[in-house]
Parts: sequence; C-alpha cells; structure tokens
Amino acid sequence: MKIDLNCDMGESFGTYKLGYDEEVMPFVTSINVACGFHASDPGNMLHTIRLAKKHHIAIGAHPSFPDLVGFGRRNMGASPDEIRADTIYQIGALWAICQSEEVKLQHVKPHGALYNMAATDIRIAGAIAEAIQSVDPGLFMVCLGKSQMVEAARKAGAKYVEEAFADRAYTNEGTLVPRSKPGAVIHDINLVAERVMSMVKHQKITSIDGVEVPIVAQTICVHGDTPGAVEMIKLIRKLLDKDSIVFEPFGQSS
Amino acid sequence: MKIDLNCDMGESFGTYKLGYDEEVMPFVTSINVACGFHASDPGNMLHTIRLAKKHHIAIGAHPSFPDLVGFGRRNMGASPDEIRADTIYQIGALWAICQSEEVKLQHVKPHGALYNMAATDIRIAGAIAEAIQSVDPGLFMVCLGKSQMVEAARKAGAKYVEEAFADRAYTNEGTLVPRSKPGAVIHDINLVAERVMSMVKHQKITSIDGVEVPIVAQTICVHGDTPGAVEMIKLIRKLLDKDSIVFEPFGQSS
Amino acid sequence: MKIDLNCDMGESFGTYKLGYDEEVMPFVTSINVACGFHASDPGNMLHTIRLAKKHHIAIGAHPSFPDLVGFGRRNMGASPDEIRADTIYQIGALWAICQSEEVKLQHVKPHGALYNMAATDIRIAGAIAEAIQSVDPGLFMVCLGKSQMVEAARKAGAKYVEEAFADRAYTNEGTLVPRSKPGAVIHDINLVAERVMSMVKHQKITSIDGVEVPIVAQTICVHGDTPGAVEMIKLIRKLLDKDSIVFEPFGQSS
Amino acid sequence: MKIDLNCDMGESFGTYKLGYDEEVMPFVTSINVACGFHASDPGNMLHTIRLAKKHHIAIGAHPSFPDLVGFGRRNMGASPDEIRADTIYQIGALWAICQSEEVKLQHVKPHGALYNMAATDIRIAGAIAEAIQSVDPGLFMVCLGKSQMVEAARKAGAKYVEEAFADRAYTNEGTLVPRSKPGAVIHDINLVAERVMSMVKHQKITSIDGVEVPIVAQTICVHGDTPGAVEMIKLIRKLLDKDSIVFEPFGQSS
Repeated sequence: MKIDLNCDMGESFGTYKLGYDEEVMPFVTSINVACGFHASDPGNMLHTIRLAKKHHIAIGAHPSFPDLVGFGRRNMGASPDEIRADTIYQIGALWAICQSEEVKLQHVKPHGALYNMAATDIRIAGAIAEAIQSVDPGLFMVCLGKSQMVEAARKAGAKYVEEAFADRAYTNEGTLVPRSKPGAVIHDINLVAERVMSMVKHQKITSIDGVEVPIVAQTICVHGDTPGAVEMIKLIRKLLDKDSIVFEPFGQSS
Repeated sequence: MKIDLNCDMGESFGTYKLGYDEEVMPFVTSINVACGFHASDPGNMLHTIRLAKKHHIAIGAHPSFPDLVGFGRRNMGASPDEIRADTIYQIGALWAICQSEEVKLQHVKPHGALYNMAATDIRIAGAIAEAIQSVDPGLFMVCLGKSQMVEAARKAGAKYVEEAFADRAYTNEGTLVPRSKPGAVIHDINLVAERVMSMVKHQKITSIDGVEVPIVAQTICVHGDTPGAVEMIKLIRKLLDKDSIVFEPFGQSS
Repeated sequence: MKIDLNCDMGESFGTYKLGYDEEVMPFVTSINVACGFHASDPGNMLHTIRLAKKHHIAIGAHPSFPDLVGFGRRNMGASPDEIRADTIYQIGALWAICQSEEVKLQHVKPHGALYNMAATDIRIAGAIAEAIQSVDPGLFMVCLGKSQMVEAARKAGAKYVEEAFADRAYTNEGTLVPRSKPGAVIHDINLVAERVMSMVKHQKITSIDGVEVPIVAQTICVHGDTPGAVEMIKLIRKLLDKDSIVFEPFGQSS
Repeated sequence: MKIDLNCDMGESFGTYKLGYDEEVMPFVTSINVACGFHASDPGNMLHTIRLAKKHHIAIGAHPSFPDLVGFGRRNMGASPDEIRADTIYQIGALWAICQSEEVKLQHVKPHGALYNMAATDIRIAGAIAEAIQSVDPGLFMVCLGKSQMVEAARKAGAKYVEEAFADRAYTNEGTLVPRSKPGAVIHDINLVAERVMSMVKHQKITSIDGVEVPIVAQTICVHGDTPGAVEMIKLIRKLLDKDSIVFEPFGQSS
C-alpha cells in the first residue's frame, strides 16, 4: 500500500520567511512550490528546489492569481485565457529552475483562490488543465477529489491525481465542508492521523454527520506553516510507517 | 552571405500597447521577447509568440531587472546570484509559452540596464551566461560585440553570437559611442542602411572619427518602436535584398 | 444652469502612454486621476497634476483594486477593511502630489471593478465612503446615481455627487443597461450630445425602451481614451455652450 | 537632557510578519513606517499607525526605492525627479493613514539604499529634501549626521535632525565605518548602551581607532528586527532612565 503526502513549500518572499520548509521536507513526498505570483521569488524558488533535490522530493508548480499582498487567497475575475497564460508562465518559470538543478517537475497544483474557483468552475479548471497539457503532457494536475478539476483534466486529456485533505471534514457526498462551517477543520492531530490511515487503507472517511463515505486519495494534502502542523505530519508519518504503508510520490507509482 | 536582424518585441503590458510588432515582424529574422520584468505579461507574451509563429521568426527571451515602472532601464544593485535566478525564471516563463505553441527558443538577450551592465561587468555577464547554460545549452546568448558578455559566454561554455547595432556610432576601438555623446545615434536611415551593408559585406564600419574598424556582426539589432524605425528596417531589408544577402536567424546557420 | 464634466486622466504608466490628456483637459471640468494601483506612477501623477493646474481643472483621486495587469477591471475578493485601507493610501498619495503643486483635491471616484462592485455592494461602498470621510470630510465621493454608493455616502456622512454617463443607455428604472446587453453603449456622438443636454436641462433621459425617466446628474462622465471620444467631448461642450450652460466643477457650486 | 530613539517599524507585508513591533514600540519615541515600496501594504500601515497611536509614539514616513523583492536594499539608478515623485507619493500615502487615525506625521527618513545613496549624493538628498518641503514644511528630514543629507536639507530650507547609530562604529572623522569593514557593527549590548550614553551626555563617541570624536545625535537609530535587538533597546533605555535622561520625540523638543 502506497501513499503520497503533498505540502505547499517555498512560500518565503524576499527577506520574508514563511513556513517550516526544512523541518517538513523530510516527511513529505511531493511539494507544491510557489512561483512568484502569490509568494516566492526566483532566488527563493531556486533555494527551495535545491532543498527538494537534497531530500529527493517530487516537485510541483503551485500557480496562483497575481496577488502578492493577498497571498493569492482573494478571488479574481480573471478570464480563462488570462488564467491559462498565467499558469503556463508560472509552470515555465519553475521548470527552468528545476532544469538548472537537473531535477524534474512532477505536477501542477493551483493555489488558494485559484484552486477553490477551479474546483467549482469548469472553465477555470479547463484553462488550467489545458495550460498543463500544452506545456508538458507528462505533468500531473492535482485535483480536488470529485471536483470540476477532475472533469476538466479528463476533458483536456491531462494526467491527474485526486487529492484529499488530512485535516478537513467531509460531507456525506464526499465533498469538503466549507471553512465557514463549524467543524470544517480538524485540529486534533491524533484524529487527523487516524483519518489519513482510513483514507489510505480503506478508501473511506467518516463524514461530519458520522456516515462512512468512500474517498479517492491518490495524494493527501498536509500543511507545513505552523509548528503544530509539523507535529501533525510527523505523527501521520509515524502511524502509517508502523503499518508498513509506503510513502512515495504519485508520479512514481503511475 | 547571410545576416540576422533582431528586434525587441512583445513590450506591450496589460492594456498598454507599445511598438509596431505586426508591422516589423515580417522584416526581421529574430525577436527578443519581454518576459514580464520590464514589460509584457503572460497574455501578451502568448500573443507575441503566436505572431512570431505565424511569421516563422526565431524567438529569444529578453530578461531584465524587475522594474516595470522604469522599463528595465535603471541600473540595479542586484547580486550575480539574484541576476542568475531572475534570468532562469524569465527564460523558463517564455520557454513554456513557446512550448504551448509548439515553437522553439533560439536565444537569450538581456534587456536595457542589465545588458549595459553585463557588457562591462564580467560577474553580471557570467551570471547570465550560467543561467542560460543551466537551462538549455542549446540556447544562444546574444552578446554586445567585444564586450565582457562574449568573455563570459566563452567561460561558461555557452553558445553565443556577437551583436552590432544598426543605428549606433562606433569608436576606433570598435566599441559603442556612449549615448551621452553627440552623434551616438544615427538618424539618417539611408546612412544606417549603408552601414549595415558594410557590416555584413565587409565586416567593417566607419568609426565616429572616420576610421575604418573591423566589426563582428553575427546579428544586427534594429529598433521597432517608432514609425521611423519601421521605415529604417524596411530600407535595410530592401537594400540588402537587392544585393542577394540572405536573411536568416543565426540559430539556423550554425 | 451649471454642469460638471468628469473624465479619467493620468492613466499612462512608466514608458507607456494612454489617453488624450492634453487634448481633453481643456474641455472637462473635473478629472479622476489614477493613483498607481490600476495605472500611473508617481512621476506620471505629478505630470498630470501639473497639467490640471495649468488648465484650472478640479482634481479627484481614482482609487482601484491593486491590479496593473488587469487595469483594475477585474473583480477582486478584497475585504471591506482591505478596500478601506487601499482607498486611504491612494487618496493620500495623490493628496501629497497636489500639495506639492499647491492645488486641492476635490473628490474621490472609485475606478473600474471597484466602482462597479461598490455600486451594488453596500459594504464595499461603505468602506470607500468611510475612507474618504476619514481622510478629509471636505472631499466629495462621486457615486453612480441611485446606487448603493449614494446610500453609503449618506450613511457615512460624506459629501457626494451623483453621476450619469454621457454614452450609456439607461433602463426604465434609471439604472445603467449592463455592458453585456446590446445597445448599452451609445456610439452616435450627436445622440450622446443631445442626451447630455436633456440630462442637464430637463433632468430626464430616454430609456432603452423609449420611456422618459428622471435622472440626477450632478456630474457627467465622459471618456477621453480614443480620438472619437475627444470629438464627443468637444461636441457636447459646443452644444451646451450654445445654450449658455455653465461648465463648472461640482465642488465650486456647492 | 533629552533624547529620541527612532526605529524602523511596520515592515510586515501581506501575510508575512517581520520585526518585533509590539515589543519594541513601548521603548522607542519615534518610528519610521514603511510605505509599501520596500515593505508593508495599506492594511499593515494602518495597523502600525494604530499601534503607534496607542503608545503615543511619533510617526515618520520611511520611503524607499520601489523594490519589494530586494527590501529596498539594492541601489537603483532612479533620477532625482523619479525619487522626488516617489518620495512625495509615499509620504502622502502614510499621511492619509495618519489622518484617518487622527494622528500627525513628524518626520521622513529615507530607507535602505535610498538612505545610503542620499548620504553621499547631494542630488538624491536634494530630491528627498524638496519632496518633504513641498508636501509639508513642518516635517523633519532625518539625516545621517555630517552627510550630504544635512547639506540638502539646509539648502531646501527643510527642518531636519541629525541621526547617530547606536550599534555602529565611527571613524576619526565622525562618519560611519562601512559595513564591509571588520568591527563596523557593535554586537555587545552593554557597550552599545554605554556608547549611546556617551553620545547623549557628552556629544562624543570613541572612534574605531580609539580617538574621542564629537558627534551630533538629535535622534539615535536602534533596530527592532531581532530578539537581541529588542534586548539592546531595553538596556539602552534602562541605563539612560537611571541617569534621568528624558526620552522624547525630537519633534516635541523643537
């Protein structure tokens, strides 16, 4: 039994430091690297790729709306054409940095507001899928499970994986409970680790209403931007290691 | 006898239009495409690459210091490491856009203040040469003739071509007369066309002091941002066409 | 009988030129000056204020979402607190430039997507009204007539004027016909001039369905970014001049 | 006997946190607030001004070259006209935020590379002095002691104070030992506190060569961006408090 843990990385910017990249890197298998639109800059991207290379972590681009002040978390009324071009640009920027360090790009995962909008808007998801496909058909699109992103990836003929969230509650339909609702985020790290175990071993998760629902988790998203988050990742890793579950980037299994 | 004419292109930005891209494109053989740091944005880069594809023009990246307000014309005290990373980033961004349109990148030519600083500072020229070499050793570096850029390209083992300027005066040493001096820029389009002819056919140019000096011109830079400039390019083209000189991107001859 | 004509100005950016500021300035009475978030830069703002000073034009700030690439025309999910702070910042930047040229600020008019969102969202309109009021209670807020902006200005106790558009069609309810609908923009400059005359003299306008509807037009917005637009402004001016209508900034009448 | 301690503040940006503003604020008398060009954003500027208001700290603008990635620490070849306009813009942005919180601006201190270049280049220092003077003649310009900034302020007729650095070594001529030289920065916090005491009580400082040199210190710059720096400020404060030296913003004494 195999699983991939993905985590956002390289979100520092200029003189500003963000996240626990050095601490988290050894415990995840894939990373999503900011490309300068919501966070990071070329020097910091290079630093992040060198760190990933050292730890043999699979690398993905983490494109965003152009919004440094808002960290890419604010919805923007960009057109699909604009999103397609912005996504190509950001993938390329990271690709070249990988190239200069002789490592490969594995995937693309949209960031923040762009991810959330793509999950429900097929035109936005389609723009991203086409962008990925047009740059390199070998790249995976990381999609929110059961979302419009999956639909768009299929349509564009792009490789994709479905993603589940370690610390988020799910509805009976297997979709994410919106962050605005109570209980949307699970803070108990033991419970989170158990839920990840259930996702991986049984492809099931207990919904917020207590119902067992099927879930596809080809990669599981964990967060690395708080000390607590680092503890959570280590615990997940420890628990699943004990059960002989293999941690491996999804790009290797396929 | 063959020659390449290169011209800066794709310098529009968002809603702002700059340059006579459509008018100039049919008359040049290589273009230097702005990558978003001094001009352009992903959507406009894509538009420019489509235009270049239509006209079968060879494409180069035109990286710059990050300075939109100053159009990359202001010197910046960036470190060689910062310049190296910024250059890689910009090459990659344009590479991906070329990839999405199934065309190739031929070269990299630094823009504005970065070009001028690289011409005299071997550390800056070296950072650019290493950046190019690390992304794709097949890419040419466009260097000011006889400058530190040539030296840096050789040292890094990067492919390069030496560039001459159609409308600039030269010293007895074969270097450019600084723009601050009278007579530095030649405005008479007939004279410019004749000088280009001399560069191509005889590898010679008359210096500002009236001395014949040898010149290496593997590519000749022309400007396309004024109506007068467009006329100049057409005249150069007409004159050299008459003499059966072949216009061809330098990447094809080598 | 008096009227104010307002027009967006100072939308150039760095090396990029936009609009016919010099041509339009003599024919309008109030201008809305871009503040660096969707267009312009400090040097260009200073140039614009000097031009306005020369022509004795009343000056307003034209704050926007932070979106240079999209020219402030893309909706952004910024919070009211973010919009309030961004608006204060932009008003202040222009205020200081006016101060350095010893002229006064008359008003604030939100730009593009911010204007459109404020017209229908009382929380956004309220953030703008509070921002204006907190910087200088003498400043007018330019509001789309009958919109949530008027409501917000009243609530905040801010001075305001209601604005009508010279070249836009109106519904029977006196609201703007959305740009997406056919006939939303009126291109016949004679018809536009007549409609402005009707707004000013009779406070009435013929709706897109042919019904006469009352309209409040304390200032009328004209565009100055195309040669045709310049002609339109001159024609409006000529027609109303003949009828002895006085052109005067709204800040002077009150 | 009175002294002012000034410290850079409000250097966070969007989601990025920098500095120990809350810890340092109670121990200094004047702050230099980033204005969005090298750090900060409107929301964070507002937050900083509210904090300063709570602690009754005197407020200054901290304008910079436009360089977020380089934190304003990279020299830029901007013209005096560009620097003048950029400075006016940034002062105004902070002025409006102060206005909205009903507090006053006391001073302007250029940041980073702009400060260093102004210290030795009278044209740059002059552009800043004129900018300050043109916005509000009541504002002080904070100048490196004995530098071209002092000269420029006098010439422009601007109010100014001369600044000394708590933790920097001085030459026999009373100028700063360049950071590139060994011993340029003093790390021993007891020694730093003693030197500040000497500056304030005796207007003298021991140079790096052991010579006593006269020094003008109308305000003393301390740093607040490391935990060690916070300790240093507290120690300076404690030592001078014991000696009944009064801490007061320079704007109040004059």
